Amino acid sequence: MRDVAVIGVGETEFGELWDRSFRDIGIEAGLKAIQDAKIRSEDIDAVYIGNMSAGKFIDQEHVSALVADYAGLADMHLPTVRVEGGGACGAIALLQARLAIASGMYDIVVVGGAEKMTDVGEVQAAEILSSTADQEWESVFGATFAGLYAMMARRHMYEFGTTREQMAAVAVKNHKNGALNPEAQFQKEITIETVLQAPRVAEPLGVFDCAPLSDGAAAVVLCEMQKARKFSDAPIRIAGSGQASDFLALHDRRDLTTLDATVIAGKRAFHEARLQPKDVQVAEVHDNFTISEILAIEDLRFIEKGKGGPATAEGLTALNGKISVNTSGGLKARGQPVGATGVAQAVEIVRQLRGEAGKRQVVGARHGLTHTLGGTGATAVVHLFERGD
Amino acid sequence: MRDVAVIGVGETEFGELWDRSFRDIGIEAGLKAIQDAKIRSEDIDAVYIGNMSAGKFIDQEHVSALVADYAGLADMHLPTVRVEGGGACGAIALLQARLAIASGMYDIVVVGGAEKMTDVGEVQAAEILSSTADQEWESVFGATFAGLYAMMARRHMYEFGTTREQMAAVAVKNHKNGALNPEAQFQKEITIETVLQAPRVAEPLGVFDCAPLSDGAAAVVLCEMQKARKFSDAPIRIAGSGQASDFLALHDRRDLTTLDATVIAGKRAFHEARLQPKDVQVAEVHDNFTISEILAIEDLRFIEKGKGGPATAEGLTALNGKISVNTSGGLKARGQPVGATGVAQAVEIVRQLRGEAGKRQVVGARHGLTHTLGGTGATAVVHLFERGD
Repeated sequence: MRDVAVIGVGETEFGELWDRSFRDIGIEAGLKAIQDAKIRSEDIDAVYIGNMSAGKFIDQEHVSALVADYAGLADMHLPTVRVEGGGACGAIALLQARLAIASGMYDIVVVGGAEKMTDVGEVQAAEILSSTADQEWESVFGATFAGLYAMMARRHMYEFGTTREQMAAVAVKNHKNGALNPEAQFQKEITIETVLQAPRVAEPLGVFDCAPLSDGAAAVVLCEMQKARKFSDAPIRIAGSGQASDFLALHDRRDLTTLDATVIAGKRAFHEARLQPKDVQVAEVHDNFTISEILAIEDLRFIEKGKGGPATAEGLTALNGKISVNTSGGLKARGQPVGATGVAQAVEIVRQLRGEAGKRQVVGARHGLTHTLGGTGATAVVHLFERGD
Repeated sequence: MRDVAVIGVGETEFGELWDRSFRDIGIEAGLKAIQDAKIRSEDIDAVYIGNMSAGKFIDQEHVSALVADYAGLADMHLPTVRVEGGGACGAIALLQARLAIASGMYDIVVVGGAEKMTDVGEVQAAEILSSTADQEWESVFGATFAGLYAMMARRHMYEFGTTREQMAAVAVKNHKNGALNPEAQFQKEITIETVLQAPRVAEPLGVFDCAPLSDGAAAVVLCEMQKARKFSDAPIRIAGSGQASDFLALHDRRDLTTLDATVIAGKRAFHEARLQPKDVQVAEVHDNFTISEILAIEDLRFIEKGKGGPATAEGLTALNGKISVNTSGGLKARGQPVGATGVAQAVEIVRQLRGEAGKRQVVGARHGLTHTLGGTGATAVVHLFERGD
């Protein structure tokens, strides 16, 4: 396989962007990444888009051709691909683009992730999110997305003694990081008390245990490694990738406190990269709920199983802790425009590895990881990145 | 790039399958292809699914994980990917799977295409189809999908003298082929008069100028070429692939009577395969409307520009004519479950090249082509296949 590197990154601000359309934000992120990569549009061989539900959120399918067209690339007749896998779609798009370059078919690919969620009401948005769980055996019986994650949280509390305070510590940490990220949806610190006292969404999860609905887009430019050195002094190599699936419905799984898809995707990525969890200094993991980050840091073997709660409360995953997790603010504070997530995570890791993360810079970051979930964990994708020098 | 071959094919019957769900048909097609390939489930490295709008048709996103799960593969934790690009999604999924194998990441991939369209009403289905055109500049002003293709037909009639009778000849031919295909939705011949006298959908297109709404699924097993020879005596090599995009909205395009995306995708595929249109004996092209097949055979350079109508009326594209087009019955008669289209086309070409097409066998078929459109031609994908011997 040919080596592939990230040579450009860009993203919009994340939030309720009611004055901008899907095509506006998709283009903004893409053009920022292209400018950052210092390539010309003629250099681009293909466009890949991660998007979960434009069909339902904005009544538009075929959004990859849409974005290429409105970005002014229609005359180039580029191949465009939209990839979906629930919330993991951006990370899967990144993987497909990587493989397409690795194969030799393309040299330079722009990978975008975008979602415009806030043009529909909150109830409808919740229904759309739950359509990534098993509609016929979960949603139809009234299980909401938050309700399913709440069951994982309850079981984790029962098995390992994890507390609501420990879960709240995830939100507090990620808001603290988000306050240092000028593109984050929430740039304001919160306290443990705020999280604990918030209205409940699905017991034991309250409003502050849940990532928000968001609009936003992110993009990266991928390039074959030899060529990458011509465009960039600091190409960030994709050292390994792993993707795995699992039973779609929670009740079919072996265990509620381990996401097997994360475990296996992580193993596959670390195996390819010939790295260990201890080699990683900075990770963006899928914290759509506070419990999700606790599961992720355990299942990726950054923290021993069952200790994710105490580890977070003790600050092991804080900025420049044992491992810095969700320095961007994560889905919780940076925001959660679903299709953008996997790509936005890569943007943050690239900035960290380049040393361009400003006030939230992780000192000595050399290897970074992204972890993205689809549904309630029926899909997981892990990418490992490393500085090219 | 590593060579990739098709070693197994399967599909459901196409039609109004009200007694079967999306997951049922997806699994049926996949298992048929796996059995045909004589592989074990442990041999599979990944699952790719082409699907346009499960989110809207059946309220379920994340269908790649769903299909893998219900096919009994969840324990293997395979990577699963859903690809969308309007009606071209099955063909794009095939391309992504090909590239993933070519890269060296996977050796054997199951590619499925599926759509369950008839559980919603016809008006809603038409709205969903039109969401692959430009919602903000076409659909919102009342342009239906049929209406947009009708404009192409009108212009083709004006520029080249194409007649309604010539367009009707496309439907008559494809129904004649469909009558020889036991999996086709319509297995009944029709006459030119039937087409001309049918109620109009969008002048000059009548009901019989339009492909139907359908349920159905198709699947192929792709394998790296060296390994393919171990599983199959007749691996069918993918000799070339081309994909191209165009302006999403019809009114932005250079010309209404040429789909530039088809022209360029075709050139790219023929270039990679080092073949010419004259080398191809059998082609499955995107005849969602009768005019679409006329555009396709011209834009792929099987027939001179402007002569597609007369050529069809004269029988040049009939079974064992100059080039046999849509021997399966095409979208028109085999049926049009959108996500399945590109994969079902590949199934037909593989059967033809293996000599297993029964009463509709093209004599001496050595090279075959598939051509699939997304939207009104903002995406086009062309694959070229050849017998491995």
